[in-house]
Amino acid sequence: MTAEASPPVRPAVRLPVALDAMGGDHGLTPNVQGAVQAAQAGVSVLLVGDRVKLHAELGQHAGSSRLPIEVVDAPDVIGMDEHASDVRSRTGASINVCTRLVKEGKAAAAVSMGHSGATMASALLTLGRIKGVDRPAILTHMPAQGGFTTLLDAGANADIKAVYLAQWARLATVYLKVLEDRDNPTVGLLSIGEEDHKGSQLVIEAHGLLRELHGRGINFYGNVEGRDIFKSTTDIVVTDGFTGNVVLKLAEGEARVLLGWVKEALNSNLKSKLGGLLARDALRGLAERMDPSTYGASILLGVRGLAFIGHGSADARAVKNALLRAARAHEANLVERLEAAFAQAG
Amino acid sequence: MTAEASPPVRPAVRLPVALDAMGGDHGLTPNVQGAVQAAQAGVSVLLVGDRVKLHAELGQHAGSSRLPIEVVDAPDVIGMDEHASDVRSRTGASINVCTRLVKEGKAAAAVSMGHSGATMASALLTLGRIKGVDRPAILTHMPAQGGFTTLLDAGANADIKAVYLAQWARLATVYLKVLEDRDNPTVGLLSIGEEDHKGSQLVIEAHGLLRELHGRGINFYGNVEGRDIFKSTTDIVVTDGFTGNVVLKLAEGEARVLLGWVKEALNSNLKSKLGGLLARDALRGLAERMDPSTYGASILLGVRGLAFIGHGSADARAVKNALLRAARAHEANLVERLEAAFAQAG
Repeated sequence: MTAEASPPVRPAVRLPVALDAMGGDHGLTPNVQGAVQAAQAGVSVLLVGDRVKLHAELGQHAGSSRLPIEVVDAPDVIGMDEHASDVRSRTGASINVCTRLVKEGKAAAAVSMGHSGATMASALLTLGRIKGVDRPAILTHMPAQGGFTTLLDAGANADIKAVYLAQWARLATVYLKVLEDRDNPTVGLLSIGEEDHKGSQLVIEAHGLLRELHGRGINFYGNVEGRDIFKSTTDIVVTDGFTGNVVLKLAEGEARVLLGWVKEALNSNLKSKLGGLLARDALRGLAERMDPSTYGASILLGVRGLAFIGHGSADARAVKNALLRAARAHEANLVERLEAAFAQAG
Repeated sequence: MTAEASPPVRPAVRLPVALDAMGGDHGLTPNVQGAVQAAQAGVSVLLVGDRVKLHAELGQHAGSSRLPIEVVDAPDVIGMDEHASDVRSRTGASINVCTRLVKEGKAAAAVSMGHSGATMASALLTLGRIKGVDRPAILTHMPAQGGFTTLLDAGANADIKAVYLAQWARLATVYLKVLEDRDNPTVGLLSIGEEDHKGSQLVIEAHGLLRELHGRGINFYGNVEGRDIFKSTTDIVVTDGFTGNVVLKLAEGEARVLLGWVKEALNSNLKSKLGGLLARDALRGLAERMDPSTYGASILLGVRGLAFIGHGSADARAVKNALLRAARAHEANLVERLEAAFAQAG
C-alpha cells in the first residue's frame, strides 16, 4: 500500500520532477537528501532554489554528480510566515519557478514541502484548472485499518458548495484507479449520521448530487461518520476543506499522543519495561504504519498539471516518496485521464 | 480528572436523578445495574420506563429494595430508529417523562443513553432555553494529554451562526468553573490555522466576537487546530456541531483502531507476546485512559434544567458515572449559575 510497495517507476521517466528545494521547516538539507535518494531510485530531479547553496549541499553527497539531478536557480523563496498571495508578484520565488517548469513542459510535476498556501496559489495561477473543476482540492491518504483511506479536501477550501464535493468524488475516483489500481473505489460523504437526511444543509444537498452520479463514474456508498475513516468503510471520503483539515490534524495529533501513552505505559515499572524491550521491534512497525512520511506529500487535484504539497516537517524519506509518487503520476498520465473523465461526464 | 476522582457527592442529594431506563443499545440491563451502583454511592435514582420489566430487573440485584431507587412508569419509548420529532406527540415516552420530572421540580436531572436526537428535542421542548442562549449545545470531554479537553458542540447543531460559538464559550467556561474547579479556563476556537485571519467565514467572524469578549467572562486563547485537542492546548474547544461530531467520532474510532494495532503488534511473535504479557497491567491502564465511559455522558448545555446524553453503547459504569455527574451538577446549582452568567453578560 505504501509508495515503496507499488510497482517501481519505469526506468525511462520522460521528464524530471521539479522540487522546491528551499521549502520546508528544515531548509534544503532534507530536500537535497530526498532528491539524492529518489535519483538513486531512477527518478530525475530538478532542484529549484539558491544555486550556490544547492551545489554546496549536493557536494556533501558523494557520487551525486553521477545522478540525474540538475540545479535550477531561483533567486527568491516564499517564507513560511509570508502571505500566500505573494506568489502573484514574486515571479522569481522557487515555487513559481517549479510550477512554470511544469507549465512549459520541462518538468513532470512540482513538489514542495514549503508554504502550502503559496504552493496552491502558484499551481492554480500558473497551471489553471481542469475543465469542469470549480475548485482544486488537496487529496491525502490517512492510515486506516484497510491500509489507507483517501480524504479530500484536506484544507484547500474552507467554504464550499455541494457541487464541489461531487467533482472531488470524481477526481479521487480516477486518482485511485490510475495510481493505486483500485477497481471501483467507493466514495463516502462525511456526515454526522449514516441516514441520508442527516447532516448540514451542505451535506444533505451533496448527498442528493452524489446519489444521482452513482454508477456514472462514481461508486457512491452513502454517508459515513468520523469513525469510518479509520475503519476503512469506504476507499474515499469527501468533505469540505475545513472539516478535512481538522480531521487530518486531529488524527495526526491523536496518534502522536496515543503512541506517547503506550511508551509511557511501557516505562511505568520494571516489569512493563522488560515487556517493552521484548516487544520493541513489533511496536516499531506500528509507528511506521502511522508515519505520514510514507506517502510523502498530498496532491493538489484539479489543476492542469501535477502539484504535490508536503508537510513542512518532511524528512528525506518523505521528500523521496513524494518525488517517486510524482513521477508515477506523470508516467500514468494522471492529469490527462482526469481531463478525459470530466470531458466524458460533460 | 475522572468522575471518581472528583469530590464525592454530598450525602443529602436534594432530588433524585431521573434515568431513561429503557434507552440505549442494550436495553434496561446496564441502566438498572448502573442505577444500583449510583444508589450505592449515595445518589437517589428514579428509574423511568416499563414498570413491570424494571421491577423484574431490579429484583435481580440483591438488596436493591433498601437502596434509594424508585420506579416511575412510562408506557412508551422512542426507539433508536425512530424520529426525534416523535417526542412532540408521544407524551408517554420515557424520555418525556424524565424531562417533565425535571421541569416539575421532582428530579434533579434527566439522563438518557437512548435516542440522542429525541433526548435533545424533549429537553428543549420541555425545559426551554436559558435566556441569552440561542441554541443549546452538547458538551463532551475528550481524553487528552492534560487529562481531558472539553469540546462543544458535539453534534446538536450542524448549521450554526458565529454568535452561538461565543455563547457556547461562555456556557463551557461556567461549566468547568462550577463542576471541575478550573480557575480561568482557556477557550480555543477550532480552525485550520492558528492565525486570526485563517478559517471559514464563520470562524473568522466568531474569532472577532470571541476576541471582543476576552476578559469579560471568557478567557479567549485564539484559534486552535485539530492537533491541539489531544495536546490540551486549551481547556475548552468550541466548534460547530458538524465538525464537533466528526471530531468526537473520529477520535473514538482512531483510538479503537490504534489500540487494536498495539495488541496485534504484541501478538505478532513469541518475543513480543511475552513482552505484552509482562506489560499487560500497564497497557490496561492505557485503555482505561481512553475509555469514554469514564465521563458517563455529555451534557446538553443551554437548556433550563439538567439533561445528559450518553452513548447508546453505554455500560453500567457509564450509566453510574453519568448519574453521579448529574447529581453533582444539581448540587452545584449549575443551571442557576449559567443563568446568572448570562444575566450578567446582558
